[in-house]
Amino acid sequence: MTIYLFILFAFVTASFSQENSNDKIMVKKVFDEVLTNGTSYELLEHLCKKIGHRLSGSENAEKAVFWTKKVMEDYGFDRVFLQEVMVPKWVRGDQEIVKIDGSNEMLSALAIGGSVGTEENGIKADVVMFHNITDLEKADKSDVEGKIVFINGAFNQTYIRTSQAYSETGRQRWQGASVAASLGAVGVIIRSLSSSLDDFPHTGSLGYDEKHKKIPAFALSTIASNKLATKIKMGTVKLFMKLNSKWYDDVKSYNVVGELKGSEKPDEIIVVGGHLDSWDVGEGAHDDGTGCMQSIDVLRTFKALNIKPKRTIRAVMFMNEENGLRGGLKYAELAKENKENHIAAIESDAGGFTPRGFSVDGAADKIEKMQKWVSLFDKNTISYIDAGYGGADISPLNKTQNTVCIGLNPDTQRYFTLHHTNNDVLEQVNKRELLLGTASMASLVYLLDQYGL
Amino acid sequence: MTIYLFILFAFVTASFSQENSNDKIMVKKVFDEVLTNGTSYELLEHLCKKIGHRLSGSENAEKAVFWTKKVMEDYGFDRVFLQEVMVPKWVRGDQEIVKIDGSNEMLSALAIGGSVGTEENGIKADVVMFHNITDLEKADKSDVEGKIVFINGAFNQTYIRTSQAYSETGRQRWQGASVAASLGAVGVIIRSLSSSLDDFPHTGSLGYDEKHKKIPAFALSTIASNKLATKIKMGTVKLFMKLNSKWYDDVKSYNVVGELKGSEKPDEIIVVGGHLDSWDVGEGAHDDGTGCMQSIDVLRTFKALNIKPKRTIRAVMFMNEENGLRGGLKYAELAKENKENHIAAIESDAGGFTPRGFSVDGAADKIEKMQKWVSLFDKNTISYIDAGYGGADISPLNKTQNTVCIGLNPDTQRYFTLHHTNNDVLEQVNKRELLLGTASMASLVYLLDQYGL
Repeated sequence: MTIYLFILFAFVTASFSQENSNDKIMVKKVFDEVLTNGTSYELLEHLCKKIGHRLSGSENAEKAVFWTKKVMEDYGFDRVFLQEVMVPKWVRGDQEIVKIDGSNEMLSALAIGGSVGTEENGIKADVVMFHNITDLEKADKSDVEGKIVFINGAFNQTYIRTSQAYSETGRQRWQGASVAASLGAVGVIIRSLSSSLDDFPHTGSLGYDEKHKKIPAFALSTIASNKLATKIKMGTVKLFMKLNSKWYDDVKSYNVVGELKGSEKPDEIIVVGGHLDSWDVGEGAHDDGTGCMQSIDVLRTFKALNIKPKRTIRAVMFMNEENGLRGGLKYAELAKENKENHIAAIESDAGGFTPRGFSVDGAADKIEKMQKWVSLFDKNTISYIDAGYGGADISPLNKTQNTVCIGLNPDTQRYFTLHHTNNDVLEQVNKRELLLGTASMASLVYLLDQYGL
Repeated sequence: MTIYLFILFAFVTASFSQENSNDKIMVKKVFDEVLTNGTSYELLEHLCKKIGHRLSGSENAEKAVFWTKKVMEDYGFDRVFLQEVMVPKWVRGDQEIVKIDGSNEMLSALAIGGSVGTEENGIKADVVMFHNITDLEKADKSDVEGKIVFINGAFNQTYIRTSQAYSETGRQRWQGASVAASLGAVGVIIRSLSSSLDDFPHTGSLGYDEKHKKIPAFALSTIASNKLATKIKMGTVKLFMKLNSKWYDDVKSYNVVGELKGSEKPDEIIVVGGHLDSWDVGEGAHDDGTGCMQSIDVLRTFKALNIKPKRTIRAVMFMNEENGLRGGLKYAELAKENKENHIAAIESDAGGFTPRGFSVDGAADKIEKMQKWVSLFDKNTISYIDAGYGGADISPLNKTQNTVCIGLNPDTQRYFTLHHTNNDVLEQVNKRELLLGTASMASLVYLLDQYGL
């Protein structure tokens, strides 16, 4: 693109109509403040580079708790407090090997989070491949018994939102080990839940069905999966896998909450949050350092613009979304115990990419009310507010007190290339994309605070 | 993000309503085909890695011409042809130095495209800094004469679309040298036209005013600009700059055109295009390899889906957008000469990022007609069709035969971090983002072909 025809470019702004309402002016003020002085990116840089990944129960998770508490105290929020919550503790160990027996070449693999380890000397067994978990469920026990199961389900690329492919294929990670074990398998390997072809394996959590033996589980990169599939098509393949992961007793941890007290209706609470824990790889940048830092920055923005909220606004860093959801459950439990009234909760847990819309889990009339606000946003930020998923951490609030749960929907195209991998690092985050998400959430909090639901 | 609550995720698709029109079905078919079999990315990989950057008049530009011609012939398009056009030839040379006199540290700099070279031994002179070109225009000759001018204008970060900041700040690159020369400066240095703080300098073109002496011109990275500004604030700074760039006689080159002949109204032509030339740094991936490869892929998609267009559809690789627009002008000139009737032209020249909308330079009633098509698209692809800028290469068609000119608007947040830099490489392109742009254009071409304007 060159610079010819400067003037024509000015047309571009026509997409933002000049309706002169106060709300539009306020939304513009919020965006200007965030794009000029927003701290989401610099906070994220600290979280990623000075602390790093933060699996529940780890030392880093503890560091992140006390660091975010201090950040919010230093910003002078009205109240900053911790909510104690017991979290699971799983440690990957230092022996993670998947290779074709007789070959020296390692296949790019990560143990699936929560997997039990192998015997000390590893496992060696023939592999049987399935195109997806449904095929595995239909398999004969005689074809699976004593073998390592490989589930090679790929993302459906025709879904516009990659999150749809993730939820459809996700069952192979979550249930693969249990289904394979029910048929007598000794181990399971899955194709990573990824929208791209590369050599990064994606971890994530699994759930063991207590009825069956717990067997070790790995995820291969999509390139390694293709390689293995090709070998299997050529003849019998024996795999070697080794893992010394371990489960420990639950550990004390915390949700971290920062609050601006409402001036008129302090008992009505609006939450904006993300989860502070991450997987034990990469830096947990997009998942979900971005959501946490954005949430803190939303409250900072209110203070910077000297907006005194009518209602109480909380930034919540939930603990243990990835492998337990204990923090989200604890938050809702305490809210009920303390008779708090949460009118709305916004979660950012789909990456710090450029925002496209909000999806709302709530009553139709409330969604309709919110949809009128779409026109207040530049079309290149929030272009829709529709019925949809809110977020994992806030979903217990929806169940216990019918809170309207709102998810920030960033563009999804890049998220599942790096989600739960060693590539989920600060360098994958674009500062302005991140800030536009912050500003979108801050604007929505402003509107929810002004008008309620 | 974890996998809890699979079912809730399904809500996400609610944003794509199930209106069962044929058009909606066709748009879905187009997206499915492109997301499954689209070749935009693999073609781009060849262009970037086997050919590389392609400044007009260079050997690489010539290679790109004959390779794209062959690609379209191999796809079996009805007609593939070249349009001869004479293009300027500027060569950067191998001596590009900007440093503070007395220091060994080089400042990250690129000559601005088209800049004359310095004397053989370089230039040494005091620097005078201006915050923007308007301040320079108001300056006294006595403050500038004999000096090197440094224009340190930064992007206005409050604009949502970074292209707006680019066009506002862009004058310092395009006119900086002439304005500085008019006040007696011996050289000019500008802050790169960039939305980010990093160490990549951005080149681009300048225009010399024939009334004044041609002086050499450089762009510094934003980090180097900040460094220089700090030094200048501390006291007088003398700079050394050296450049052995050269202008040559015009060179013969070509637009490359692939065509599917219309079955009912072959005389009505719809163009989809990008520019094949790039700057002489990086790989010209986003600027504008993506637009060219997408355009070829649009016609491939029509063939793959066995859609016989009513009107004639052309993929056009324009030559020399970056420093002359000769290809765009030649295309319109030949269209007029051959009495061709171009009803619409779409240009993709704002990067291969995730699509957000189309901007249309045309009559209001035609824009209104097109706006009814927005609902055919998933909201996470095209969320608006609005009045706006079409594109540089197609703009001459708008002038000569009132063609409706349409620009694909991808998300702009990342574009001006890498535009005209060594960082504009394939690795910055996300395959699915690129394909969503291809599918959006193919769908729009389908609708334009079905209904005309």
